[in-house]
Amino acid sequence: MNIITGGVTAPKGFKAAGIHCGVKDNFTTPVPDKKDLAMVLSDVPCAAAGTYTRNVVKADPVILTKEYLADHKAQGIILDSGNANACAPKGMENAKRMAAAAAAATGLAPQDFAVCSTGIIGVELNITAIEAGVPALVAALADTEQASNDAAHAILTTDLKIKEIAVTTEIGGKTVTVGAIAKGSGMIHPNMGTMLCAVTTDCAIDGAVLQDMLRHIVTKTFNRITVDGDTSTNDTCVVLANGLAGNAPITGPGADYDALVEALRYVCEYEAKMIASDGEGAGRLVTCTVQGAASEEQAELMAKAVVRSPLVKCAIFGTDANWGRVLCAVGYSGAEFDPKDVEVKFLSQAGELKVCAGGQGVPFDEDLAKKVLSEPEVVILVTLTAGDAACSCWGCDLTYDYVKINGDYRS
Amino acid sequence: MNIITGGVTAPKGFKAAGIHCGVKDNFTTPVPDKKDLAMVLSDVPCAAAGTYTRNVVKADPVILTKEYLADHKAQGIILDSGNANACAPKGMENAKRMAAAAAAATGLAPQDFAVCSTGIIGVELNITAIEAGVPALVAALADTEQASNDAAHAILTTDLKIKEIAVTTEIGGKTVTVGAIAKGSGMIHPNMGTMLCAVTTDCAIDGAVLQDMLRHIVTKTFNRITVDGDTSTNDTCVVLANGLAGNAPITGPGADYDALVEALRYVCEYEAKMIASDGEGAGRLVTCTVQGAASEEQAELMAKAVVRSPLVKCAIFGTDANWGRVLCAVGYSGAEFDPKDVEVKFLSQAGELKVCAGGQGVPFDEDLAKKVLSEPEVVILVTLTAGDAACSCWGCDLTYDYVKINGDYRS
Repeated sequence: MNIITGGVTAPKGFKAAGIHCGVKDNFTTPVPDKKDLAMVLSDVPCAAAGTYTRNVVKADPVILTKEYLADHKAQGIILDSGNANACAPKGMENAKRMAAAAAAATGLAPQDFAVCSTGIIGVELNITAIEAGVPALVAALADTEQASNDAAHAILTTDLKIKEIAVTTEIGGKTVTVGAIAKGSGMIHPNMGTMLCAVTTDCAIDGAVLQDMLRHIVTKTFNRITVDGDTSTNDTCVVLANGLAGNAPITGPGADYDALVEALRYVCEYEAKMIASDGEGAGRLVTCTVQGAASEEQAELMAKAVVRSPLVKCAIFGTDANWGRVLCAVGYSGAEFDPKDVEVKFLSQAGELKVCAGGQGVPFDEDLAKKVLSEPEVVILVTLTAGDAACSCWGCDLTYDYVKINGDYRS
Repeated sequence: MNIITGGVTAPKGFKAAGIHCGVKDNFTTPVPDKKDLAMVLSDVPCAAAGTYTRNVVKADPVILTKEYLADHKAQGIILDSGNANACAPKGMENAKRMAAAAAAATGLAPQDFAVCSTGIIGVELNITAIEAGVPALVAALADTEQASNDAAHAILTTDLKIKEIAVTTEIGGKTVTVGAIAKGSGMIHPNMGTMLCAVTTDCAIDGAVLQDMLRHIVTKTFNRITVDGDTSTNDTCVVLANGLAGNAPITGPGADYDALVEALRYVCEYEAKMIASDGEGAGRLVTCTVQGAASEEQAELMAKAVVRSPLVKCAIFGTDANWGRVLCAVGYSGAEFDPKDVEVKFLSQAGELKVCAGGQGVPFDEDLAKKVLSEPEVVILVTLTAGDAACSCWGCDLTYDYVKINGDYRS
């Protein structure tokens, strides 16, 4: 597998575009880019798969996309940022109008499109601006890196960085490319945010197989990040696979299946970590890896509790090697373990620091601790001796800016 | 039931004291009071009950107190603040030495004492300072309001306010008094905090009955507050009942039982709300009441998710009537409900504001919203039409100071 430049337009036969149409015009948060409408389109029909928020309160575009993709077929994705079209007047009507506008401008059917929205909750979507903008959006479609970049910009809300990735892998003697763009400044931002990810590939694969593969991969990537523990009403990850790589279609387990899993998982994990590190107000990416656990489920419970803990997140912000908070989070995670069996280390490019062994503190160098924790990427490594299972989850520190972004933005 | 002045010394036959002995001397957080050692003592043996943290990682004093109170008998409580004696060298040895020191100075047995500690995790307790301080602590014991007040001060860490309460009720023709002191600047503060509550009463009651009563009440009071979702290693609530009110001992259900439940629940709820409103960095007490739910469990899931949500907490800090975040939290709470059946109001002394009906936003006056949300106590009222059950949970806003307290304190 190789990492290459580009995003959703890297696989064969995909175009993208991102423009400003006016959805963000009454969006009072400072946004890094005013683009607010994006499209990803394949030249030919695709096998399609999607995963969606588990929140009981689902935005209408989520409900509609799930319905449209039930046959595992689609050809494009239309996305807006600035308005989540959740709990909003005329939500379903406007979601359908978005798909219809995309269809009319491309000569396809509304059911060929996934519809994704992200932004404020409870406010009516400016569908007139979207409908007026779609022709220009379609006219701007291109298979260039710049086009993917434009689309990546057009889906941001409080994000500070675009989140693009592309990789190639060998499947059945053919080069298969997987590309993606994502947004999310936290796993979850019911008012401002949401996690959206659009993945494209030219791999040939059966739609139902792709759906199973995606569901499995999402549990191990996007479902392992957290910024604030709030699950959005709009979270969506959609994959379009157009088959133009020319490989023999993947219809089940085997080497080809595994190669695509590796590429798709890499892409999803990359985007997930990008979202965590660009969490609202975040200064650093925090990885908690739990190893030596009795099962992956147990390791995941522990790792997720650590990266979710506000006290751990504040400690990382304060470059404080506060392992007591790590132990405490592991302790209330719901996982079963012997507290006397816990070792904790902090790791980063600046070095490695053992802070706890046998469930008790060990002396450490406070200056080194400061250095280790000041790096942009910090790993909290929790080691048990209960088994062979391991899991990593990702989050970010909790800073003044998180409070500012979420407390002040309407003031 | 009447609310009276005073705390743990209000019931007949209880003394208290709080002094400085030196545990807090290397405690680098600004603390409002340097007192760090407290005792609550009954003149006669008591029925005793305790509830403890559910964290797998339990501090040694928690383990010891559970053991000592297994027979539902005790006569006193010794408490230190500044060091949690959790994951600390010689933890159990030092917890036993605290009980032994209390016993030696009072002529009782170590098993007659509950031992509570709160403060930093992983650092060896300064047991020498405690042992040296106990004789002065015992000499200071008094049945005055000031003595309860001193004890209430001596258990604070990052708390800004002491948390004392006393009530009287009529049981079997006798006046029964229930008093309490508590600490906790958040439900949970693995490094700095913990929730501790010492309750005294002169009611006569069987120990096992008291234990059942307390367990039930704690689930509806202390277990319904949250500051940051982190469950401490040290949480403890202990009740001592010495029977000096002269009522016929309560041995099971009935009017007397109900009267004590009412008083004890009032006291525990008061202390719980005091802890929530004094959450680290908190500016306001936030109550979420869910009514019209199918069951109390469902209502509790929803209410707890709302008061725990960092995004809701930031919105309250920013006096932003951001009901979308409330709906989102209710949606991921795990409760089952129809999103179209949700009404949301914000209430305070400044007025009432309906912001959402039928799961969608309704127009509201932004100026009134600002006024309602600027009050020190704000209620988020979520109304469903699924049934008759209701539940309130309590929390606080999330402010810059929370990040400061937990990010900066060792710098």
